[in-house]
Amino acid sequence: MENFTFWSPTEFVFGRDTESKTGELLTRFGAKKVMMLFGGHSAERSGLLARIRESMRAAGIDFIEFGGIRPNPTADKVYEGIDMARAAKVDFMLAVGGGSVIDTAKAIALGVPASEDFWNFYCGKSKPDTALPVGVVLTIPAAGSEGSGNSVITNEKTLQKISVRYPMLLRPKFAVMNPELTMTLPADQTAYGIVDMLCHIYERYFSNTPATELVDSYSEAIMRDVMDQAMTLHFQPDNYDARADVMWAGTLAHNGLCGVGKTEDWASHRLEHEISAIYDVPHGAGLAVIVPAWMKFCARRNPDKLWKFAINVMSVDPAGHDTDEIIAEGIHRLEDFYHDLGLTTSLRELIGGKEPDIEAMVKSLERNMGPTLGSYVPLSMDDCREIYRLAL
Amino acid sequence: MENFTFWSPTEFVFGRDTESKTGELLTRFGAKKVMMLFGGHSAERSGLLARIRESMRAAGIDFIEFGGIRPNPTADKVYEGIDMARAAKVDFMLAVGGGSVIDTAKAIALGVPASEDFWNFYCGKSKPDTALPVGVVLTIPAAGSEGSGNSVITNEKTLQKISVRYPMLLRPKFAVMNPELTMTLPADQTAYGIVDMLCHIYERYFSNTPATELVDSYSEAIMRDVMDQAMTLHFQPDNYDARADVMWAGTLAHNGLCGVGKTEDWASHRLEHEISAIYDVPHGAGLAVIVPAWMKFCARRNPDKLWKFAINVMSVDPAGHDTDEIIAEGIHRLEDFYHDLGLTTSLRELIGGKEPDIEAMVKSLERNMGPTLGSYVPLSMDDCREIYRLAL
Repeated sequence: MENFTFWSPTEFVFGRDTESKTGELLTRFGAKKVMMLFGGHSAERSGLLARIRESMRAAGIDFIEFGGIRPNPTADKVYEGIDMARAAKVDFMLAVGGGSVIDTAKAIALGVPASEDFWNFYCGKSKPDTALPVGVVLTIPAAGSEGSGNSVITNEKTLQKISVRYPMLLRPKFAVMNPELTMTLPADQTAYGIVDMLCHIYERYFSNTPATELVDSYSEAIMRDVMDQAMTLHFQPDNYDARADVMWAGTLAHNGLCGVGKTEDWASHRLEHEISAIYDVPHGAGLAVIVPAWMKFCARRNPDKLWKFAINVMSVDPAGHDTDEIIAEGIHRLEDFYHDLGLTTSLRELIGGKEPDIEAMVKSLERNMGPTLGSYVPLSMDDCREIYRLAL
Repeated sequence: MENFTFWSPTEFVFGRDTESKTGELLTRFGAKKVMMLFGGHSAERSGLLARIRESMRAAGIDFIEFGGIRPNPTADKVYEGIDMARAAKVDFMLAVGGGSVIDTAKAIALGVPASEDFWNFYCGKSKPDTALPVGVVLTIPAAGSEGSGNSVITNEKTLQKISVRYPMLLRPKFAVMNPELTMTLPADQTAYGIVDMLCHIYERYFSNTPATELVDSYSEAIMRDVMDQAMTLHFQPDNYDARADVMWAGTLAHNGLCGVGKTEDWASHRLEHEISAIYDVPHGAGLAVIVPAWMKFCARRNPDKLWKFAINVMSVDPAGHDTDEIIAEGIHRLEDFYHDLGLTTSLRELIGGKEPDIEAMVKSLERNMGPTLGSYVPLSMDDCREIYRLAL
C-alpha cells in the first residue's frame, strides 16, 4: 500500500424526501444568495425544482436560476453562468442534477472569484486559489461529482474535454441524495450512470501497487452489488432499494475510498473523453465501448489484475481453465452485462454506423495528455490507436 | 435502507513517516498552544514522542505534555487534564496513542471550555455546545476513535463506563496513521484491537433493517480481510502490509461507513463495558468473551443475519446443513479465531478463574442503559443475565 490522504468532508444527506432539507442545509453552510443550476425540463416537470424553491424560501434564502445545462457541459455555458452569478452577487452554487450540472456549477464556482479566464484552471495554465462553495441535489447517480473535487468541461472551440481535480476547493459542502428522484430516469441514462460508476472503480482497481487486499476486496464487493442492482433496475426501474444502492455506490466509487493507497489509472476515461468530445455521445455509452477494448489490450501485457477481476467480480470459475481463458471469459461477461443494459460495445455502432476518425482522436489525446497514458499498462499513442481499433 | 447522513471530515494522513507532518497539520488547523497526550513509556522509548516534539518545534508550535493515560481511561485523569489545559491556555488537543488516549483528549476538549462538570456530558445531564479541536497520531488501531465522534470514559467513583457520540464536536481534525508505529505492539494488544474493530462492524452488520445489500457486502469484505491479516500478524508481527490493512480497517469500522442506512445494535459493547468497568480487563478481551455468547443467544430468536455471517464471513459451506448447524459452525469458527489470537472466550477465565458477579453487572447495566438493550434482538435484563451466563 502506498501513503495516502483520505478526506470526505461532504455531508451526504441520503434518503426519502431529503430535498426538503435543502434550504436548511444552505443556511447552515452560510449561503445568502444562491444560484440554482439545473438541466432540462424533467426537474421542473417532476415538481423537484418547486420543492427546492419552497425549501429555500422557507429558509429565507434569496436565489437566481440557471437552467438548460446539457450532457458533456460546455465552456460557453460556464462563461454565461459566471457573468450571471457575478451580476447577481451570488455567494453559493446549488447544482440540481447529475454530473454535468454539478461540474458546471463547480466551474462557475472557480470562475466567479477569479481575475482570469476560468479555462486556465482546466487547460493547466494556472491554479485557482479560491472558489464559491457548492451544494448538490443529486438526480443522476453516475459521475460521483457530488463527493469529489473533480469537474469535467468540454471546450467546443478547442474540441477539448478536460477533467480537473481541486479537492480542497471543489468538494461540495453537502449533497442531498434521494433515490426516489432517480426512479424516473430513462433506462439508457440509468445504464450510462452504472457504467460510469463501475469504471470509476476500475480506474482505481486496475493498479500495479502491491498489497492492496483490503481496498481491492471492498471495491470488488461494491462492483458486484452494483451489477446485481443494475439487473434489478433493468426489470424494476422503480425499485427503491436498488436505486438506493446504486446511488450510494456512485458516491463511494468516486469519493476516494476505492483508491486509497494505490496508483490509479484513468486511461479508459481519457480514451473515452475523446469519443464524447468529438461525437457528443453520452460518457457512459463511450465507456461501454472503451472498457472491454482496454481490457483486451491490457490482458496481453499485464494479466494479473484482470484475472482477479474475472474471478472475484465477474464470478468466472477458474477450475480447469488457463489465465487467458479466464480473463477472456471475464471480459465476455462484462460485454454481456453491457448488452443486457441495452448498450453497444462497438465504437462504430455507437456513432451511428460511420467510420470513426481514430487519427483525430489519437491526435487530440496526445495534445491533451502527452505521449503516454495510464499506469496499469502505460499506453503509447500507438497503443491507444490499437485500443480504438479493438473497440470498433 | 433507512435515511442517513454520512460525513467523514477527518483528514486521514496515512503511511510511512507521516508523523513528521504533525507540526504542519497542527499549523494548518490553527493550533497555537497544544496539549500532547500519551499513555505509557513505549511512545517515549520508541522515539515517537521525540519525533513529534521535533515536528512541532519546527512548525513553531508551543506545547505542554500530559502522559500516563491508561486503558479504560478514567474521569479522574480527565479532571486533571482539564485543570492543566486551562492553566496553560491550551487551544488544541493532540492525542498520541490509541482509543484511551484519544477518548481522554476528547473528554478534556469538551471540559476545557465548559462552565459545568464534563461528566454531565457523559451521564446525560446536559449537552455540550463547543469543544477544543482534537488531532491524533494513532499508535493502536482498535477503537476507531481517530475517525469517530465517540468517547468512552470510566467514572471510578460511580463504576460507570459511558460512551458518548458528539460527531459535530468530537471528530478529530486530522489523524496521522503510520502502520510502522504499530509493528511493536505486543501480540495481545494487537489481538484486542482486531477484536474491537471487528465488533464495531458486527454492531452495525447485525441489523434488522431490510435491503442493506451494498453496505453488508462491503462490510463482509472488510471483516474477511481483517481476519486474514490478523492471522498474518500473528506469525509476522512486523508485516507492514498487514499492519496497514488492519489500521485502515479499524478506521472504516467506526467512521460510519459500515452503518449507513441501518439501525445499529451496540448491545455487545454495552454488555462488555460492564465487565471492563468492574474487572478492569481490556475492552477487546471482554468482547471476545461477550460476542460469541451474544451470538448464541440471538441465534434462538433472530437467526437470519447470523446465518449470512456464518456463510459470507466465516466461510461456512451451507451445503447439506440446516440453519442451526450453519450458525453454530460460524460461531464455533469465530471462537476458534479468538483462540488462535491467544484470547479466551470464557468470562470466568478472563477474570482470573473467579466467579463473576453477574448480578452486579446486570444491575449496573440497567442503571446505565435502562430496561432494554440492542435492536437486532432487543434484550431484557433477564436476557442480558443469560448472555453473561452463556459467556461463563
